[in-house]
Amino acid sequence: MKTLRKTAKPKLARGLKTRDTILLKAVSIASVEGLEGLTLGKLATELHISKSGLFAHFGSKEELQLSVVEQARLIFVERVITPAHNSTGVKRLRSFYQNWLSYADKSTFPGGCFFTAASLEFDDRPGKVRDQIVKLMKQWIGMLEQAAVQAQSAGDIKKEIDARQFAFELHSLAMGANWSSRLFKDETAFATARRAILQRIDQVSDEQTKRK
Amino acid sequence: MKTLRKTAKPKLARGLKTRDTILLKAVSIASVEGLEGLTLGKLATELHISKSGLFAHFGSKEELQLSVVEQARLIFVERVITPAHNSTGVKRLRSFYQNWLSYADKSTFPGGCFFTAASLEFDDRPGKVRDQIVKLMKQWIGMLEQAAVQAQSAGDIKKEIDARQFAFELHSLAMGANWSSRLFKDETAFATARRAILQRIDQVSDEQTKRK
Repeated sequence: MKTLRKTAKPKLARGLKTRDTILLKAVSIASVEGLEGLTLGKLATELHISKSGLFAHFGSKEELQLSVVEQARLIFVERVITPAHNSTGVKRLRSFYQNWLSYADKSTFPGGCFFTAASLEFDDRPGKVRDQIVKLMKQWIGMLEQAAVQAQSAGDIKKEIDARQFAFELHSLAMGANWSSRLFKDETAFATARRAILQRIDQVSDEQTKRK
Repeated sequence: MKTLRKTAKPKLARGLKTRDTILLKAVSIASVEGLEGLTLGKLATELHISKSGLFAHFGSKEELQLSVVEQARLIFVERVITPAHNSTGVKRLRSFYQNWLSYADKSTFPGGCFFTAASLEFDDRPGKVRDQIVKLMKQWIGMLEQAAVQAQSAGDIKKEIDARQFAFELHSLAMGANWSSRLFKDETAFATARRAILQRIDQVSDEQTKRK
């Protein structure tokens, strides 16, 4: 089962390079058009390959969508989670969000954070794609909550803070940045969210662990 | 020009009642399926009327989508903005969010807050529908910011608070609740957001204006 913790790539197989190239383009299109807007026809046109060539890799639209979610997961792990691996306590939370803000800004996907878009697109569409997105999003929120609990145990964060609510707050501010950036083409959105998130982390931090 | 301030309904015209009935159903479907998922065919089937009967009201899918946005605006004004009309200062901000949380919870639309969904669906789809959604969302965020500035002038909110960032924070927490409620079917989402939002308002309030 794929989780946010595992970074291992699928086994090498014939045609893997082509599959990787296809999926990177597919994630990119899906971040803008949505996973439902990503059709085999559109993907084939963008890649200048035949639709039957795509069918050899992905038998159905659902299989393509699941592969795109998996590709986006690998990118998220690489860009957001792995670089925070060696931090502990409140520093880990700051690291997660410094990484997330860089990842969600234009550089990774043309349409902003893939998971923010996909999770809203699929919130009312039952099926395997929704199930996988829900699982990954639960893991991410759980990871934030766990980091907050560990920071409390380490004495970095005030004991009276509700770790679950705090994780919800950080995640909401990050999604708000993605929303404002995409909808208003607001170039200050990520800077605003960065200030809001770091201030919120400071508010819950014990005096000695605040940023100097 | 339609704005979030005007609540006046369009002039009475022949067939208006049918049009209202159609639009209420259409907003409801669009909150779940998205505005793109709302086709004239699907709407006709749900209402047990002919597609040609719908064409008499809405000449195109775009016209239907714009009418749905307008219907959702009227509901938002009625449920969220008008009831806060007589409050001032920090009480107005609290009233906006008490109203918003009731509105966004299941009772108004089966798919949660119509505008949260529509603004993410259309963030990368240029056209009249996107333009109208952007205009309304800017007005809403502007209204929150203006309420925060007025609360500062009234001495309710600390002078050092950045009203624009504060409006962004409140809006993000509200959207986060909608997201969590829809994606995880999390029945505690709105209660969590309510705590987070009221605590945040308390944090920026001067001592004497905090909730007792």
